[in-house]
Amino acid sequence: MAMTMTQKILAAHAGLPEVKPGQLIKAKLDMVLGNDITSPVAINEFNKAGFEGVFDTDKISLVMDHFAPNKDIKAAQQCKQCRTFAHRFDIKNYYDVGEMGIEHALLPEKGLVGPGELIIGADSHTCTYGALGAFSTGVGSTDMAAGMATGEAWFKVPSAIKFNLTGSLQKWVSGKDVILHIIGMIGVDGALYKSMEFTGEGLQNLTMDDRLCMANMAIEAGAKNGIFDVDEVTLEYVNGRVNRPFNTYKADPDAEYDQIIDIDLSKITPTVSFPHLPENTRTFDEIGDVVIDQVVIGSCTNGRLSDMAAAAEILKGKHIAENVRCIVIPATQQIYKESMKLGYLETFIDAGCIVSTPTCGPCLGGYMGILAEGERAVATTNRNFVGRMGHVDSEVYLASPAVAAASAIAGKIAKPE
Amino acid sequence: MAMTMTQKILAAHAGLPEVKPGQLIKAKLDMVLGNDITSPVAINEFNKAGFEGVFDTDKISLVMDHFAPNKDIKAAQQCKQCRTFAHRFDIKNYYDVGEMGIEHALLPEKGLVGPGELIIGADSHTCTYGALGAFSTGVGSTDMAAGMATGEAWFKVPSAIKFNLTGSLQKWVSGKDVILHIIGMIGVDGALYKSMEFTGEGLQNLTMDDRLCMANMAIEAGAKNGIFDVDEVTLEYVNGRVNRPFNTYKADPDAEYDQIIDIDLSKITPTVSFPHLPENTRTFDEIGDVVIDQVVIGSCTNGRLSDMAAAAEILKGKHIAENVRCIVIPATQQIYKESMKLGYLETFIDAGCIVSTPTCGPCLGGYMGILAEGERAVATTNRNFVGRMGHVDSEVYLASPAVAAASAIAGKIAKPE
Repeated sequence: MAMTMTQKILAAHAGLPEVKPGQLIKAKLDMVLGNDITSPVAINEFNKAGFEGVFDTDKISLVMDHFAPNKDIKAAQQCKQCRTFAHRFDIKNYYDVGEMGIEHALLPEKGLVGPGELIIGADSHTCTYGALGAFSTGVGSTDMAAGMATGEAWFKVPSAIKFNLTGSLQKWVSGKDVILHIIGMIGVDGALYKSMEFTGEGLQNLTMDDRLCMANMAIEAGAKNGIFDVDEVTLEYVNGRVNRPFNTYKADPDAEYDQIIDIDLSKITPTVSFPHLPENTRTFDEIGDVVIDQVVIGSCTNGRLSDMAAAAEILKGKHIAENVRCIVIPATQQIYKESMKLGYLETFIDAGCIVSTPTCGPCLGGYMGILAEGERAVATTNRNFVGRMGHVDSEVYLASPAVAAASAIAGKIAKPE
Repeated sequence: MAMTMTQKILAAHAGLPEVKPGQLIKAKLDMVLGNDITSPVAINEFNKAGFEGVFDTDKISLVMDHFAPNKDIKAAQQCKQCRTFAHRFDIKNYYDVGEMGIEHALLPEKGLVGPGELIIGADSHTCTYGALGAFSTGVGSTDMAAGMATGEAWFKVPSAIKFNLTGSLQKWVSGKDVILHIIGMIGVDGALYKSMEFTGEGLQNLTMDDRLCMANMAIEAGAKNGIFDVDEVTLEYVNGRVNRPFNTYKADPDAEYDQIIDIDLSKITPTVSFPHLPENTRTFDEIGDVVIDQVVIGSCTNGRLSDMAAAAEILKGKHIAENVRCIVIPATQQIYKESMKLGYLETFIDAGCIVSTPTCGPCLGGYMGILAEGERAVATTNRNFVGRMGHVDSEVYLASPAVAAASAIAGKIAKPE
């Protein structure tokens, strides 16, 4: 039977010649991820279940990123629990303050995830690694616990939507605009428990950062995973990072899809998701004067080097509006350092922004820029649910780093140009 | 009657020819300061009292530094209240995310406080500005409210202890070691409601950053204020910053002091305050193996450029110990930027530290590095009370940036050399 890219990866990891949508399979895991919020829950489950060891000390990643550097005593206790666990079981990929970064930026950067691999993570945006042609998906902490112990997990094989990409992006349009456009088109449940498979000749025009951003937000359309064909861009990215053999999988030409959607990248314009759902997208012809209080440039969606570059290009020599706070958060120490060397951080500070150490921070209302009642933020993050970034009466508008930077300067949602 | 330096400033601001210790006076204020924790309380009092205006829009500083960028919804609401108040009364020196810094580093840097001036602040470390030859002291939020409205405050004139400084500091010994040494000598109530007046030929060998650090911690000996003679170092520092006329005051040669203490700066060695009081000082001959979990380099005490320089000099080309988190917090945006230009931030990151945006953060257990149960930190901050930086069963060891950096490398409290 013809299979999609996702189905092929699942079949290979289940040791089966083929799998069908809806089939329950047990598959081997190449990486199990947890963060400082979800790992403590998983560790408690791990202990309760009486597990006495982990399946592979190289194939577990614990990343302290949500409330680290510890924002309060509870966060401190949670990080300590993770640290102790990592030490006890000699877990190699434990990332704490100093070497850390936001998990979904860090794992690809460090080569801990690669093409054709199967990754689960106790974080909904684990689907990010689909950008590399991996199957990766978010799971609950109990699955994480079992995964750490056994190296296996159960999956229901998803069906898929194929996105056939053509053309190339205009200046100031990025992967973020593409994925917001798609979510606006199909809705937050438009790909419920399906794979979003990105393919087509337009793929070559998307950078790895574009792809990571798009795969990251597959979950915002309800997808089980987002996944990209492996091509030269992928291989160039993983070269020198993924230092182990990996397989690449291509969907069969006659694979069945629930839907095939053609996306002409050249037609996409800067797109903003209005409160309180990622699907509430508008392009600039539909956006009036939306005065803002804060801008956040960062997160696992858009805290990468090209995101910093786009923001810096717009902010260079300018100053943000008087009543706006602009918080820039490079997603990893490596990105922070490169941004510093390239002069981006100086540009940000000269423009009146602040630069935070890598953290998820305000994205999920953690810290580093929580909103007060009635405040509005333009954020490059991935969710704009009610109260996501603070007070229940605050608002988050999702956009690209270019739109966010332009908005910081204008003091209202603005086009980057 | 002969007067101390402090008494002269108070007399001048009270419009009196002389004042005596214990006398109650009403004096005019040159600056009224509040932060994001204390200002909301003061604003509420201001409103309750029915005040309808501020005494001088240039002579009030509101600095969002403790829990900003907002660490939670409460912090966001408090900052919003301050922002609204500043806007309503056209308060010129309102510092929010972007232009901000830690209040006691920011006000001297911006020239908002100068020699001979009288400053109150709703923050105990307001005594910092004594480094410039000002009388400055911490007050409650009610005094801040009345001060903002009337430009006056009541004071009980303090008596004084004179510290007669001689000699000069050895390499790796700083103002922090001097003030810790003094607090260790006289105790946390050793200067209760007194002025600590620093004078003598050794003064010329103390940088402005040394002095700011020392004056900052006068409150840790219970002092009403700490104050330094104005000399060439002071005048050089305020030149180009304080762009208004100011007076300098010298104690009368026959002024009465409760005590005169001679300090030979050349005899002071690196000093650490053990938990849980700043007076629990030890020098390295009395310090055994104290394994640590975290290092904090920053705060209103030691987050200035020379502090960053000292830490960078020690960390250059080295890496911190594996089990240590090292959090570096330049105290203002200016210091952050200069530290970046001078390569210090790159040194910190290469050494495995993280660099935070300016904030008080962990010093008072706010955020950005809270301690878990049983954890130990070496910090360049000013207080090591029980639970100050997190869990009630955590410990804080106060030290200079040089000792802190050396300790981060060693993984235990270590001498800088």
